[in-house]
Amino acid sequence: MKTTPSRRSFLKLAAACTAPAFGSLAFAAPQTQQKFDKVADVIVIGSGFAGLAAALEAKEKGASVMLLEKMPAYGGNSAINGGAFAVAGSPLQEKEGIKDSPELMLQDMIKSGRGLSHVDLLKNIVYGTRPAFDFTVKYGVKYKPFVQHFGGHSVPRIMQTVESTGGGITRPLVEAAKNLGVDMHLGCAVTDLVLNDEGRVIGVKVLERHDYRKENSGVPQVYGARKGVVAATGGFSQNVAFRMQQDPTLGPNLESTNHPGATGEVLQNMLAIGALPIQLDQIQLGPWSSPDERGFGLVSQFNTIAGFPKGIMVDKRTGKRFVNELADRKARSDAILKQLDENGKPVYPICFTDSVGVKQAQTLKNGLKYGVIKKFNTLGELADAYGIPKEALIKQVEEFNAYVREGKDKQFDRPLALAIEIKKAPFYAARVWPKVHYCMGGVGITKNAEVLNVRTQKPIPGLYAAGEVTGGTHGASRLGGCAIADGLVTGRVAGDAVVANTPVNLE
Amino acid sequence: MKTTPSRRSFLKLAAACTAPAFGSLAFAAPQTQQKFDKVADVIVIGSGFAGLAAALEAKEKGASVMLLEKMPAYGGNSAINGGAFAVAGSPLQEKEGIKDSPELMLQDMIKSGRGLSHVDLLKNIVYGTRPAFDFTVKYGVKYKPFVQHFGGHSVPRIMQTVESTGGGITRPLVEAAKNLGVDMHLGCAVTDLVLNDEGRVIGVKVLERHDYRKENSGVPQVYGARKGVVAATGGFSQNVAFRMQQDPTLGPNLESTNHPGATGEVLQNMLAIGALPIQLDQIQLGPWSSPDERGFGLVSQFNTIAGFPKGIMVDKRTGKRFVNELADRKARSDAILKQLDENGKPVYPICFTDSVGVKQAQTLKNGLKYGVIKKFNTLGELADAYGIPKEALIKQVEEFNAYVREGKDKQFDRPLALAIEIKKAPFYAARVWPKVHYCMGGVGITKNAEVLNVRTQKPIPGLYAAGEVTGGTHGASRLGGCAIADGLVTGRVAGDAVVANTPVNLE
Repeated sequence: MKTTPSRRSFLKLAAACTAPAFGSLAFAAPQTQQKFDKVADVIVIGSGFAGLAAALEAKEKGASVMLLEKMPAYGGNSAINGGAFAVAGSPLQEKEGIKDSPELMLQDMIKSGRGLSHVDLLKNIVYGTRPAFDFTVKYGVKYKPFVQHFGGHSVPRIMQTVESTGGGITRPLVEAAKNLGVDMHLGCAVTDLVLNDEGRVIGVKVLERHDYRKENSGVPQVYGARKGVVAATGGFSQNVAFRMQQDPTLGPNLESTNHPGATGEVLQNMLAIGALPIQLDQIQLGPWSSPDERGFGLVSQFNTIAGFPKGIMVDKRTGKRFVNELADRKARSDAILKQLDENGKPVYPICFTDSVGVKQAQTLKNGLKYGVIKKFNTLGELADAYGIPKEALIKQVEEFNAYVREGKDKQFDRPLALAIEIKKAPFYAARVWPKVHYCMGGVGITKNAEVLNVRTQKPIPGLYAAGEVTGGTHGASRLGGCAIADGLVTGRVAGDAVVANTPVNLE
Repeated sequence: MKTTPSRRSFLKLAAACTAPAFGSLAFAAPQTQQKFDKVADVIVIGSGFAGLAAALEAKEKGASVMLLEKMPAYGGNSAINGGAFAVAGSPLQEKEGIKDSPELMLQDMIKSGRGLSHVDLLKNIVYGTRPAFDFTVKYGVKYKPFVQHFGGHSVPRIMQTVESTGGGITRPLVEAAKNLGVDMHLGCAVTDLVLNDEGRVIGVKVLERHDYRKENSGVPQVYGARKGVVAATGGFSQNVAFRMQQDPTLGPNLESTNHPGATGEVLQNMLAIGALPIQLDQIQLGPWSSPDERGFGLVSQFNTIAGFPKGIMVDKRTGKRFVNELADRKARSDAILKQLDENGKPVYPICFTDSVGVKQAQTLKNGLKYGVIKKFNTLGELADAYGIPKEALIKQVEEFNAYVREGKDKQFDRPLALAIEIKKAPFYAARVWPKVHYCMGGVGITKNAEVLNVRTQKPIPGLYAAGEVTGGTHGASRLGGCAIADGLVTGRVAGDAVVANTPVNLE
C-alpha cells in the first residue's frame, strides 16, 4: 500500500508552511505578491567549509550569492577545526610515493561507517577530494609539507593547513568570497525557510544584527533566492537537549569540541518542513581530547599529530595499551569510555611520545605552557606523575618498540607506517577523554546535494544541503580529515547544482 | 544562540499545514468553517495493540472514538506477532515463586538499549505491564499456564496467549471495541493530518474503501477529532526504501517478519508536520527466524519457545555454539549475520533441541509438516543432514549438558533456568537467519504519549502516539515480549491523555 500522497499533494503541504513568514492571509495571494527585503540567485546559510565552497562555486558560475552567518565571525565550527583534510591522491602523496586512490579511501570510509554509510554519497566525496584540494590551493590555502596518518585511514593522506586549524582554509575562502562580490552577512540568523505555493523553497526569514547570546534579538528581514537555498549549517553537538533526544548518553557532563553556534536550528527547520532525517543518533565523540581543557583544545592536536601516530596510550592502572591508537574514532572513543573505576568514574588514559615524536606537534609549546601537556625526563618520572605502575609501563614501551622494529603491532595490529620507537627523552604526555565532536546524521540528500522529502524521498525543490548538516554519508563513524573533505566537496556540488536550477521570478 | 522560533511562531507554522486538506483559500477562513465528513472526540489510527488499547481506554472514559485501520482486517502487525507479553509481576510469576519487579525489568531493558533508551519512557512501560495484563484479561484474553524465559530478560516473565499469536489479544480487544461502540473503519487509509490555524491537530484526511495494494484507491473523506488524534500505526519494516535510508544494510534481500501494511506513512506524515524523529536507524532483526519460510513463520516460535531456551544453536561448519542463545536480539542477530562463507554468503546456523525441549512448541507439528523443522533419531543423523562435523557436534552437546547439570554455562554465560540436557531422542532442528522485525525509532513522545515538535521539543497539540511508531523507548534493541508491553501500556496512556485534552469545537 502507498498512502504517501502524490508529489503534487506534498508540494501543496509544503507551500502551506510559508505562513509564518507572511501570516495566514498570504495563502490566498500568489507568492509573487510576497515582499522580499532583498533577493539573490542563491542564498547560502553558514560560512564553514561547505557554505564557503558553495558560495564560491555558485559565484564562479555567475550567480548572485548571499551568504548568511549567524555568529559574529565567519568560519563557523570549521574555523576551529584542526585543519586536517583527507585527500586521496594529493601531490605530496605522489611525491612521497604513497600509493592512494579514491577507491582506497572509499573502502576506509565504508569500514568506518559500519554498514550505515550511503556509499553513493561517499563516492561523491572521495573522488572530489583532489579537485577540492586544488580549489583551496587556488584560493591561497597553504598546507604543511608532510602527509599525516590519521586513525582508520589505511595510508597517510592527511594534508593539514600550516596554521593547524580550519581557519587556514576558511579565512582565504572568506577573502575570496568578498573579493568576488558575494553578499556577506554576519550576525544574520535564519529563523524560517520560506516556500512558495508550489512547495519550493524560495527564501529565508532572518534576524539581522542578531546576537547569538540573546534569543530572538535582531531585525527581522525576509530574503528571496531565485535559484535556491543551500543549508551548510553544520551539526548540533552544542545542543544538549536535542543531542540527548537522539543519544541520551551525551548529557551535559560531556563537553563538546564545537563552537557555541553548533546548535542545529536550520537542521530542525528543514526537518519541520518535511526533510528526510537520517541517522540523527549517530553522534561522534573525538577520542583525542583532554579533560584538562575546554573545547577542542591543544591536546587534541598533540594527540593526532604525535601521541597517537608516534606514541602510545595506556590505562594508568596497568601501564598497558588497551586499543589500537589509530583505530577509527568510534572504536577509540568506545574503548576510552570504558576506562571507568568501580564507581563508574573516568580513569583518564595517558597518551605519550618522546622528543622525536613531538617534532611536528605545533600545539606542544602552548600545551606545556598551560599545563595540559607535561614533560618528563624519564619514563619513570612520567609513570610516577600519573600513578602508573612503573615497571609495567616500561615493559609496555619496550614491547611496543619491538613491534616498531619488526613492523608489526602484535597487540592491536595498528598500522606502524609513521610509528617510532619511544626512547629519546624527554617524554611528553597528556590525559585523554572524549568530547562530543561531530554529527554524522542530518538531512538526506541526493548526489546533487538536493534535500530529500521524508514522504516522497524526492528532492524538496529549491533546497540544498552540504557538509555536517547532511546525514548518512559517514554512517556510524566519520574518519578524521573527512569533515573538510565532506564540507568542501558537497559544498561545491551544492553550489553547482543550485546554479543549474531553474530560477523563479521573485520581483 | 536560539533561533528556534517561539512556540507561538511554531504554532503558526504548523497551522499552515492544513493547506493540503482544504486548499489555500482556507487559510483566510477560521477553522470552524472547515467541513468534516464526520467528527468524534478521538481518532485512533491503527488497530494493533497500541491502537486498540488507546481506543478502549478512551471509550471507557466516555469519549466518542473513531478507529481507522487501513488494511482489510483488524489487528495490524500485532495480530501476527507471537503473542508473547513481558509482564513484571504476573500472577503466574507469583505462583511459581519467580521474583520479579518493574525495576528488574527496567534494568534488563536499559541494558538491551545500550545507552540509547529513554529511561523515563521505559519506566512508564515496566510499571504499566501488570495493569495492562489485567486489562487484557478483563477483555477475555487467555494466556498459557506457564511463564517463559526470553533472551535478555534476567528472569522468566513472558506470558503468551494460548493462540501463540498477538491475535489472541487483538481479537478480543476488537470485539470489546465494537461492543463498546467504537466507530470502527476497515480499509481506511490516513493520507494527511489536518491542523487548525493554531497548529493543533484536529483531524485526518482519509481514503475510505481503500485497497492497500492500489495506490490512492478509495473515497476521500475528512474526519475531525475534537480532543485529538492518536497515531498507533506501527513500524516501517516493510518499507524497504525508507528503511534503507536509515540503515543501508537492510536491503531487499533481507526479509521482514512484518505484515505488508508496515510501511510507515503516518510516521512520515507526522515527521512532515514537524514531529521529532528519534533513532530511526535503530531497526531490529529477529534472530530466531528461518530462511526456509516467509515472514515470521513457524520456526521463530519453535526457536523462542524450544530451540533457544531448551536447546543450542551451532555453526554448521564447526558444530560449535557461537553466541549465548538467550542474549538480547541485537547480540544474537549480529552474531548470526557474521556466519558467512569466504564469498560472504550466509552459512545458516542450526538450532535444535530434544523431545523434552519441544513439549511446549505449538508450531512443531506444522513446522514438521512444511519441512521447516526437521526430526532426527540421533544427533549423528542431525549432523549428517546439515553437514555438521559429527564428533564435534556430539562433543558440544555433551559439554552443554554438563553446564546444565552444573547450572553454569562456561561458554557464553547463558542463564540456564529453563535449560535442559539435550539427550532424549528424537531431536528437532531448524535453520536460522535473521529478518527485519521491529523499528525501535519513531517520533519522540512525552510520558503522556504527546508527540514532540522537532523545533521546540514541546508537544504538538492534539497529536499523540503509541507503540512501535514512537521512538527512543527501546534504544538500540528491544527485548522480546516488550512490543506488546509497549503497545498496550503506551496505548492506554495515550487513550487517557487524549480524553483529558480540552476539546475544540469542530461543528
